Amino acid sequence: MQRIRTAIVGASGYTGMELLRLLLTHPGVELVAATSRQEAGKPLSAVFPRFNRAPGAELAFMEPDPDAIAATGAEVAFLALPHGVAAEIARALLDRGLRVIDLSADFRLRDAAVYEEFYGHAHPAPDLLTRAVYGLPEVRSETIAKADLVASPGCYPTSILLPLLPLLREKLVDHSTVVANSMSGVSGAGRKADLSLLYVECNESARAYGVPKHRHLSEIEQELSIAAGEKVTISFLPHLIPLNAGIVTTTTAKLLPGVAPERIGEALESAYAESEFVRLLGRGGCPDTKNVARTNFIDIGWQFDARTGRVILLSAEDNLGKGAGGQAVQSFNLMHGFPETAGLQNF
Amino acid sequence: MQRIRTAIVGASGYTGMELLRLLLTHPGVELVAATSRQEAGKPLSAVFPRFNRAPGAELAFMEPDPDAIAATGAEVAFLALPHGVAAEIARALLDRGLRVIDLSADFRLRDAAVYEEFYGHAHPAPDLLTRAVYGLPEVRSETIAKADLVASPGCYPTSILLPLLPLLREKLVDHSTVVANSMSGVSGAGRKADLSLLYVECNESARAYGVPKHRHLSEIEQELSIAAGEKVTISFLPHLIPLNAGIVTTTTAKLLPGVAPERIGEALESAYAESEFVRLLGRGGCPDTKNVARTNFIDIGWQFDARTGRVILLSAEDNLGKGAGGQAVQSFNLMHGFPETAGLQNF
Amino acid sequence: MQRIRTAIVGASGYTGMELLRLLLTHPGVELVAATSRQEAGKPLSAVFPRFNRAPGAELAFMEPDPDAIAATGAEVAFLALPHGVAAEIARALLDRGLRVIDLSADFRLRDAAVYEEFYGHAHPAPDLLTRAVYGLPEVRSETIAKADLVASPGCYPTSILLPLLPLLREKLVDHSTVVANSMSGVSGAGRKADLSLLYVECNESARAYGVPKHRHLSEIEQELSIAAGEKVTISFLPHLIPLNAGIVTTTTAKLLPGVAPERIGEALESAYAESEFVRLLGRGGCPDTKNVARTNFIDIGWQFDARTGRVILLSAEDNLGKGAGGQAVQSFNLMHGFPETAGLQNF
Amino acid sequence: MQRIRTAIVGASGYTGMELLRLLLTHPGVELVAATSRQEAGKPLSAVFPRFNRAPGAELAFMEPDPDAIAATGAEVAFLALPHGVAAEIARALLDRGLRVIDLSADFRLRDAAVYEEFYGHAHPAPDLLTRAVYGLPEVRSETIAKADLVASPGCYPTSILLPLLPLLREKLVDHSTVVANSMSGVSGAGRKADLSLLYVECNESARAYGVPKHRHLSEIEQELSIAAGEKVTISFLPHLIPLNAGIVTTTTAKLLPGVAPERIGEALESAYAESEFVRLLGRGGCPDTKNVARTNFIDIGWQFDARTGRVILLSAEDNLGKGAGGQAVQSFNLMHGFPETAGLQNF
Repeated sequence: MQRIRTAIVGASGYTGMELLRLLLTHPGVELVAATSRQEAGKPLSAVFPRFNRAPGAELAFMEPDPDAIAATGAEVAFLALPHGVAAEIARALLDRGLRVIDLSADFRLRDAAVYEEFYGHAHPAPDLLTRAVYGLPEVRSETIAKADLVASPGCYPTSILLPLLPLLREKLVDHSTVVANSMSGVSGAGRKADLSLLYVECNESARAYGVPKHRHLSEIEQELSIAAGEKVTISFLPHLIPLNAGIVTTTTAKLLPGVAPERIGEALESAYAESEFVRLLGRGGCPDTKNVARTNFIDIGWQFDARTGRVILLSAEDNLGKGAGGQAVQSFNLMHGFPETAGLQNF
Repeated sequence: MQRIRTAIVGASGYTGMELLRLLLTHPGVELVAATSRQEAGKPLSAVFPRFNRAPGAELAFMEPDPDAIAATGAEVAFLALPHGVAAEIARALLDRGLRVIDLSADFRLRDAAVYEEFYGHAHPAPDLLTRAVYGLPEVRSETIAKADLVASPGCYPTSILLPLLPLLREKLVDHSTVVANSMSGVSGAGRKADLSLLYVECNESARAYGVPKHRHLSEIEQELSIAAGEKVTISFLPHLIPLNAGIVTTTTAKLLPGVAPERIGEALESAYAESEFVRLLGRGGCPDTKNVARTNFIDIGWQFDARTGRVILLSAEDNLGKGAGGQAVQSFNLMHGFPETAGLQNF
Repeated sequence: MQRIRTAIVGASGYTGMELLRLLLTHPGVELVAATSRQEAGKPLSAVFPRFNRAPGAELAFMEPDPDAIAATGAEVAFLALPHGVAAEIARALLDRGLRVIDLSADFRLRDAAVYEEFYGHAHPAPDLLTRAVYGLPEVRSETIAKADLVASPGCYPTSILLPLLPLLREKLVDHSTVVANSMSGVSGAGRKADLSLLYVECNESARAYGVPKHRHLSEIEQELSIAAGEKVTISFLPHLIPLNAGIVTTTTAKLLPGVAPERIGEALESAYAESEFVRLLGRGGCPDTKNVARTNFIDIGWQFDARTGRVILLSAEDNLGKGAGGQAVQSFNLMHGFPETAGLQNF
Repeated sequence: MQRIRTAIVGASGYTGMELLRLLLTHPGVELVAATSRQEAGKPLSAVFPRFNRAPGAELAFMEPDPDAIAATGAEVAFLALPHGVAAEIARALLDRGLRVIDLSADFRLRDAAVYEEFYGHAHPAPDLLTRAVYGLPEVRSETIAKADLVASPGCYPTSILLPLLPLLREKLVDHSTVVANSMSGVSGAGRKADLSLLYVECNESARAYGVPKHRHLSEIEQELSIAAGEKVTISFLPHLIPLNAGIVTTTTAKLLPGVAPERIGEALESAYAESEFVRLLGRGGCPDTKNVARTNFIDIGWQFDARTGRVILLSAEDNLGKGAGGQAVQSFNLMHGFPETAGLQNF
């Protein structure tokens, strides 16, 4: 397998760490740059002792300077940076001929006004929005393959969209009744020194947050609307629970009149028959984060409640895996003609 | 304070342990009996070393024999037994003149047919159902005070009913749109040797279970229907998460047309102005299990999502506290004319 | 019970939080001041929602100004401040007529030179050292009762000293062979925004740290030397493990020639026959943090290994309880003629 | 790479699960049999949903019948069975021409009398003891390579032996002063329905157990004695802490008179210069379980305490990895002429 010269920009957070984990051992990757302002100059394995002896882990973190990154000969860059910051460096790297896989929110929305509404500041690079592809490989693998700017989806959106999109596409459920409940592990909040993220604060703690208008709603509704062919507005209820990694999402919606419940299962099977990373557990299947942790799988089960007429969609993924780093690597594989599972066959 | 001679029947599970913790130090309780088939003959403090040196912890577990319990002079008995088993011993103790506070499901439902539908066997004592009071103190304190058979509510139902009942009573939300999502700590599954409850299985695991027709739905819908004045059917989505104790519930429902969102807060404040154990966090408040663990409090916050027209009710309680043992002790206090907070002022 | 006007200086950390928990419900305490630079002006219950509805929790945090504290009429102050900072405010409060219970390390050592060796800076108030009492109630309750400056012991030292002191006093073990191994929950590291204390960093992590010369060695060796009547130097091996609270310590030492192993148990029983908070589990007893969490108990077991001639001492305490706040309140009780267990009967 | 037809006998426990994880993706393995009495007939992926879509996970568990195993054409079998049971099936498989890698204790001891002393029953196959090799690859890779019966070391022993053996071999420390303290995650206790292993019992719990004569002492002392050239007896203090996987061990011993502390580091470096899975962190390095979880690495650091003259050896490994399944696969690689790291390059 040809090895692509690859950079990770912003590699000292949890998403960056997962990208390192995946890319250091990816057969089609030569990691040529990993940036971190705070850790510049230190070897990867000094900051993340876990990677000690991984091939390439002697590489030192560098400053996130576009020219320096380009000078490494990098052909593609993963960006694991805060929104707002990512757009700027994405442009600089695109200008220098790199392909960019951005894991921030900066290029996920097609409409700069929606970005401003949800993120609270003007979009930093609205002209690039049309160039970007929302990188959900199960939905638009061909566009991703040809893209030079991929906006890798958020962790919550992935866990909601994959079970729900086929049902909206086939018009099986009433989208005005969608309520999506998610529980995320703490790594989803990032690797930052914040009292609320301390072990003692999060252990034995479970709580909702960010209701009713979490930022991820914007991309969720955008993609649902595309699938439904009309504007979709849903309720999204995120919670923080004491896990290192993992998201469980349980979504309900009313089955449309006259639709047989079996069509739920059929729609899922038809949508994901060829998908390497969607594992369908069928009716009654209850996904568990422990079965997907450190993998790129999303497990999906479903139920139908005849008493209320509601479909129940259940999903579990690793928020750092299929919800972030793994999915971005999946797009990378598509972009380079590699098998979709290259570097992602972890169990 | 007068001390009531008190028994706990089935005191070696987690609910029993919480009752022991509360009753051993309750100023109005003289614990005269604690039963456990497996542990009969052993002092409480041998089975639960935590209670070593608690006043009364030298008491030995005894067999759950009604005559023996009555012979201790017990005036009241808490039952922390499996459903089906509880009814039989409740009758025996009532016949011997004890008042009974049952923490199982056996007397929570008014309709024996609903019991059979949800619990899978005929009700063991249908004639006692009219004698029992569903013991939610915030809703029917006066009836509880006079009752000789109190059916203490389930953990999930408490976390759903307390925020939702005032809204149904005042007809603020469309009850056909109610979706209640709950996350429970592992003690809710009981103290039983079961592979699925092992540390290694539950740690780093989050998953839904029991959808779409968890047993607790029966009592939830019964009480909601009474409040609404018509039959209510809802969706209930329970999850197991890695906590020792605690339940977080997030419930959504559509606000009825023409209702001002502020009425949500007003309804809650009006319902619970005098309630010692309901702490209202107001609009935007996000309850956290860590703030209610080992207490009898339920914390309640709410939000309104103008985009979808949905109210969001958030609650947190300790499933063993307000969700089980604490609430039962609260009923005990009402039944004996004690201050409602007696023995329950833990922080 | 008379209520003593009491202040907590530095009440927004984990030790401060535990002191608040204990003192808000202590029958002999009127909490008149709680200080925190960061939280000044906010009610206690706003910073710690857990205390919402606790009597007195409407009190607002104030700045740690000695005159303002004295102006509240406080008769006694607990200091939960970093070492170095505590000494200064202790002097100011003593000068204003308050008695002081200091939970920092500033007054634990009798020798200012040892302080400087272990803490890396000159002692801030060496003239006060002779005035201070090392506040281990099981060892010197009478001196504590009369003291106006109590240096409450560290968490690790308490867990090591209580099992070991009687053996050194009675010359049962060779003190040159002592190795003390401790495992502490994360709250022992304090409530500070530090990457290494994040949930994701500490969960699923266990590691030694601070070897070979942790600061607590200084007070451990001081007290062991007093008991032995000669200079004692030991090995102390602290570890951080994923618990919110609790310390388990396992200490080994060679039994001296000719000493019968039974004398270990006898020495412990004789030393702690009257101690309210030392629970002796006897030979073969293995203390567990879960049995002492949120209590002021220390559980102690022991073993003798005839193969190696080593005694094994096992102890468990709550690092915030008997290891910090609880023990300080125990001294407070002694200082005010209250029953030693006042406000500390938690199970 | 040639693929060896391989069986796992006893594949439904935690060690079996780790072996499955490693062998399903090992490039030199064709998994032809996995046995489990309880799960016979079910596909691996039904019992362990995590392995769904792993190559080979459609294989069904079979009964542990030696003839049936041999009939699959298996050339080698890993045994993850309880001690006592393993010996019997080992003999049957050896008789049928398979090579055996046994992860139980049955073949670890050279002396059947020591086995009986520590395991409480006569050795089930004493005649095979001379045929077995204690499979610590860092110590005797060449003998392992040629063996047909490998006794893979216990989890605790591995974490103690690897840091300590070089020091005994080079006579740097006084072996009569060795005290080894270990903390293990809960998976080390096995996958069995036992109240003491429930989530609620283990979470927030830390405790010693099995002192002073844990079964693993027998193999630890055997191997230390071989290295020292004389009989070694040590103290071993195991603890259970709330982790899924991982062991941290901290061992102390007196440096022998006249030995320079630097020789500790030199001995370790010299012993493990060529070792793929021993990562030396040097003086002051503090290994952390999180850096070795799900790998075959053991991280080793050390310190010298001039105050007491004691060396401190620190190690961390995954008890299921280097402490069990990973190490067994490492022996498998040696036995088949594969690179030692084949199938074990996880990060």
